[in-house]
Amino acid sequence: MTFRKRKKQHPLPPVEETAGTFTIVDGEDYLDEIFENDMRISRSFSHFQLSEEEYKENYGRVIRELSATGEHKFFVAIDRYGRYLGHVWICLKIDTVDFVPSAYILDIETLFPRIGIGGALLNRAEEWAHEMGAKKVSLRVDLKNPARTWYAKKGYSERAVIMEKLL
Amino acid sequence: MTFRKRKKQHPLPPVEETAGTFTIVDGEDYLDEIFENDMRISRSFSHFQLSEEEYKENYGRVIRELSATGEHKFFVAIDRYGRYLGHVWICLKIDTVDFVPSAYILDIETLFPRIGIGGALLNRAEEWAHEMGAKKVSLRVDLKNPARTWYAKKGYSERAVIMEKLL
Repeated sequence: MTFRKRKKQHPLPPVEETAGTFTIVDGEDYLDEIFENDMRISRSFSHFQLSEEEYKENYGRVIRELSATGEHKFFVAIDRYGRYLGHVWICLKIDTVDFVPSAYILDIETLFPRIGIGGALLNRAEEWAHEMGAKKVSLRVDLKNPARTWYAKKGYSERAVIMEKLL
Repeated sequence: MTFRKRKKQHPLPPVEETAGTFTIVDGEDYLDEIFENDMRISRSFSHFQLSEEEYKENYGRVIRELSATGEHKFFVAIDRYGRYLGHVWICLKIDTVDFVPSAYILDIETLFPRIGIGGALLNRAEEWAHEMGAKKVSLRVDLKNPARTWYAKKGYSERAVIMEKLL
């Protein structure tokens, strides 16, 4: 009895090297990677100290609450091996101030900056929103987040402020 | 057969004259007045031209979508005859950035300015939120809305901006 020798599998090049040539595809098959990355990154924006357990539980509740209304769409950037490089999460709703169909960018994240992944994801999200009949795209960005100037370059203007008071 | 003479009902003084001595009470019995006033006032904030029909339909969808998640509470200011003078609509959620229980002021409106109704409504909403375990209160205010400085005086600081782009 002989065994067919199994073809040796070449290891893939590290994703840092392949990220430069990315494509944007529907993100529904990448929800695990999307929320894994988002959960890790989002924590750094919180102004509160939370235990690991408390953060995970509340993060899950936020995702469920955000998902409960509107029509949701995900796009991901992938390398040529289909590996996750970044995502955008967009949601269609009636805007609470303008009362027209609007798209809300709930989240946009990339593993690697400055190679155009974020811009390509944003473009794809805007295209989709336009096809779906949205009249505008809105998003929230923290006052000190450098993304604020990035969005301004992409044609976004400031409409409102979020104010808050600790209790 | 005699009819008991019906006591002549004195007309109430106009609400403009009675608004000065108001009280804050639970708003659940005043939802009709709340949404009637809100629907009228909110339209002035829209940057889009909407037909009456379109506005009413989309306003209804916004209210349903906002009501779908979180724990909601209303307070109203009333005069001594129980007449509506203003309201606050507050909602408890896990904050999407800080991941702690938070309160969101969805709406605060008064029929008459400068007699302290808004401040009293805001105080009551904050007290309720604190009792309910919220760690902070958030709200959105348009960049050019004079309420922005009013909220600053009430202890609110600016945390984020809402940016948007027309499609």
